[in-house]
Amino acid sequence: MRAFACIAAAATLLAIAAPASAQFAKPEDAIKYRQSALSVMGTHFGRIGAMVNGKIPFDAKAAVENAEIVAEMAKLPWAAFGPGTDKGGNTKAKPEIWTEQAKFKEYSDKMVLETGKLVIASKTGNLDVLKTAFAATAETCKSCHDAFRNK
Amino acid sequence: MRAFACIAAAATLLAIAAPASAQFAKPEDAIKYRQSALSVMGTHFGRIGAMVNGKIPFDAKAAVENAEIVAEMAKLPWAAFGPGTDKGGNTKAKPEIWTEQAKFKEYSDKMVLETGKLVIASKTGNLDVLKTAFAATAETCKSCHDAFRNK
Repeated sequence: MRAFACIAAAATLLAIAAPASAQFAKPEDAIKYRQSALSVMGTHFGRIGAMVNGKIPFDAKAAVENAEIVAEMAKLPWAAFGPGTDKGGNTKAKPEIWTEQAKFKEYSDKMVLETGKLVIASKTGNLDVLKTAFAATAETCKSCHDAFRNK
Repeated sequence: MRAFACIAAAATLLAIAAPASAQFAKPEDAIKYRQSALSVMGTHFGRIGAMVNGKIPFDAKAAVENAEIVAEMAKLPWAAFGPGTDKGGNTKAKPEIWTEQAKFKEYSDKMVLETGKLVIASKTGNLDVLKTAFAATAETCKSCHDAFRNK
């Protein structure tokens, strides 16, 4: 019994101590996951962009729906940039993600914040307010890509 | 002025009349989008599966978080199975998706419903309740894959 309890305790401890990256069996899985989440986010962000840039008519309801998906997706990719996920798939991630973790976290936190603001802005139903929030969010995409993503 | 107004009206009409698939510039974009959404969903559904199957310890809070992402993602892929998106990328989609639209819609609606129940079940904090909802959701994945996805 004692051995079993010890193994169970160790297993629990391991589960608690495990970094988020351990939720992925292989680096490829983490890479595929983060790329998928960012891709879905990009699709919906692009639809707001099309409204903001006048390529499609402004639809206040659709703007909210798209912004809410963007904000939900914005929370997901970061846990999949764990240790050891710099290689193993077709990734454009720069090594700086893992050598400048504080900066990377600052950028990803900023993006989560700005996408949250994007939802609030979309709910005003005011295209000018949405434009401002869209630009601020787009700037967080760009600054992070410039620093941490290979071309 | 009249010509401009006419073009603007036509553009608006087109945007209203356009099917969801028209939200994607190319079939490849729609295919990538739906695969990405389903992949993110699969990752989080798999984490609930690992708890349900005893591969990782049951964590009620994590179960809710994962179920909520599953349910959100479950709403997304279907708009990306529009006309013309049967080819153009590396897709396993069977032609039956487009020839048996009512059945496909019935299956996707069922999945949205079951993932909604999965969230409710996860919030009970009861592993047995979660197991039942997980099995029901997994069955909707399987039946749809059997009917509409190539191996």
